[in-house]
Amino acid sequence: MKTTIIGFGSWGIALAHLLVQNGHTVTGWDNPAYIEKLRKNGINEYLPNVAIPDGVRLTDNVEAAADADLFVVALSTKAIPAAAPAFSQYFTQEKIVVIVSKGLEESRQIRLSQYLSEISAGCKIAVLTGPSHAEEVAQGIPTTVLAASECEEAAKIVQTVFSTESFRVYTSSDLLGAEMGGALKNVIALAAGISDGLGFGDNAKAALITRGIAEITRLGIAMGAKPQTFAGLSGTGDLIVTCTSVHSRNWRAGNLLAKGNSLEATLTEIGAAVEGVNTAKTALSFAKKYDVEMPIVEEINRVLFENKSPKAAVADLMRREPKDE
Amino acid sequence: MKTTIIGFGSWGIALAHLLVQNGHTVTGWDNPAYIEKLRKNGINEYLPNVAIPDGVRLTDNVEAAADADLFVVALSTKAIPAAAPAFSQYFTQEKIVVIVSKGLEESRQIRLSQYLSEISAGCKIAVLTGPSHAEEVAQGIPTTVLAASECEEAAKIVQTVFSTESFRVYTSSDLLGAEMGGALKNVIALAAGISDGLGFGDNAKAALITRGIAEITRLGIAMGAKPQTFAGLSGTGDLIVTCTSVHSRNWRAGNLLAKGNSLEATLTEIGAAVEGVNTAKTALSFAKKYDVEMPIVEEINRVLFENKSPKAAVADLMRREPKDE
Repeated sequence: MKTTIIGFGSWGIALAHLLVQNGHTVTGWDNPAYIEKLRKNGINEYLPNVAIPDGVRLTDNVEAAADADLFVVALSTKAIPAAAPAFSQYFTQEKIVVIVSKGLEESRQIRLSQYLSEISAGCKIAVLTGPSHAEEVAQGIPTTVLAASECEEAAKIVQTVFSTESFRVYTSSDLLGAEMGGALKNVIALAAGISDGLGFGDNAKAALITRGIAEITRLGIAMGAKPQTFAGLSGTGDLIVTCTSVHSRNWRAGNLLAKGNSLEATLTEIGAAVEGVNTAKTALSFAKKYDVEMPIVEEINRVLFENKSPKAAVADLMRREPKDE
Repeated sequence: MKTTIIGFGSWGIALAHLLVQNGHTVTGWDNPAYIEKLRKNGINEYLPNVAIPDGVRLTDNVEAAADADLFVVALSTKAIPAAAPAFSQYFTQEKIVVIVSKGLEESRQIRLSQYLSEISAGCKIAVLTGPSHAEEVAQGIPTTVLAASECEEAAKIVQTVFSTESFRVYTSSDLLGAEMGGALKNVIALAAGISDGLGFGDNAKAALITRGIAEITRLGIAMGAKPQTFAGLSGTGDLIVTCTSVHSRNWRAGNLLAKGNSLEATLTEIGAAVEGVNTAKTALSFAKKYDVEMPIVEEINRVLFENKSPKAAVADLMRREPKDE
């Protein structure tokens, strides 16, 4: 298959390894400055031990990247509205677009699949999501993920295209649930990073993750997703890895916030997209729209945008009246 | 309230701190050799930074420990059939017995609450369970747990007796679900330790934990538990903490097995109860009895009792045909 990866950052590069391994041709598209840097250095700074696989064609030209059967959207969520429209005329009915970005479209407050579906020319849309740090995937360390699409055929094609001996792909028809789990876990990871940064322990973090998946599930169900999706790889699985791994930028951001850094200083320090920050805002409006109680999302919004101290936020979460689980 | 903790190991001592803090009298009962050691050293070797709280009465005499309104059973699962029957005549109707051990009764293949209920004189039985490493609880680091009982009043009393500012107790009526989650997580922790010991990464472990809670849930539902219990503190929450924390003996045991140690050498090295080993065997017979597929439990049994190499077991788990999630 001819494939194009739109957004050739660390995750795009890790996925390119799988596609090349499976015999597909890969074009990596990104903005001119980044592509130039990639050509010069041969590596992405966030994936320093992983070379661009042989045979991958790098380009900053949309037309040169347009001739593909399957597109992978691996841009940061923020970059999607800027970069994706140039490709939308190529997202035609016979094409598959696989979203591997995790977040929500901020300005219109919709899911990424809704956004891409609206601007596309009728392509089939899938997401590939689950516990999958790029570093480990690129190194061939066993990983298990989920390909979700409302179109069963598209989910199965994505499964076939990406599956390797060490990268196992399950399928699901619950696109909505898979997307919401992937997006919202980053908000909970901010909270987990705060908890660790405040010096709390494993007990507190496990409780936070558990309460986190509960509130994500409540919202997902209200939106029409299947509850069991949130218990699976794209929900609990991805949440665990994001909250317990030092690789996670969102966890690191929470950790820096807890240690007294401002949001601005935190984002500067991390240097790359911290998806949970924007997702927190959009998640809160989803919670209001669907009338769902999301205490962790609420407290994270207060920390990020209302200068509430992380310590007070966690204390308020802890202080909620114990009741029937 | 007058309370007696039967089995005064690290978890019993941590809980004694909460009870003393809440103004209850505490008697710590254990076998003569251990009580003598405890009197001499003033600490438990697995909780080296935590003193026995002032006012706790230590005894190896059952009669001296029998005058209590609330009994806490904190013995290792293996020690319960040997030690508990001596107390059973005191487990009368007006008493509450809180089980904080996590495992299954091996010889008769029943849950601990069933065993204690059968030998008791009509007491109310509850479990206190959830993500709660003793070290953190004893140090007052925030922790959230579940008190489950078929008797609502008993669950509420347990909630009141143990709750402190940093130890939050929720209640549940799903005793069965809370007990099965607490017992079976130790088997999955063995698998997580093996995964880490083989050098796999965070992606693989998150997938394993996710699949683990799925198979525990399947068994629990077949037995009559509520599915949502397994998504809560006593299921997912406890599983996460046990699989990701260096405090966990079961994780450490899996780690040692993966590094080529025999089961015997592993148990000697750890020196304390590794509950997952016996629970694995009993869980497998439960799986057969209720006709539930439990691939992780099956593979762990092969590693523990059939000399299968941990590497081959994990490979076989990974190699299962990817399908619809």
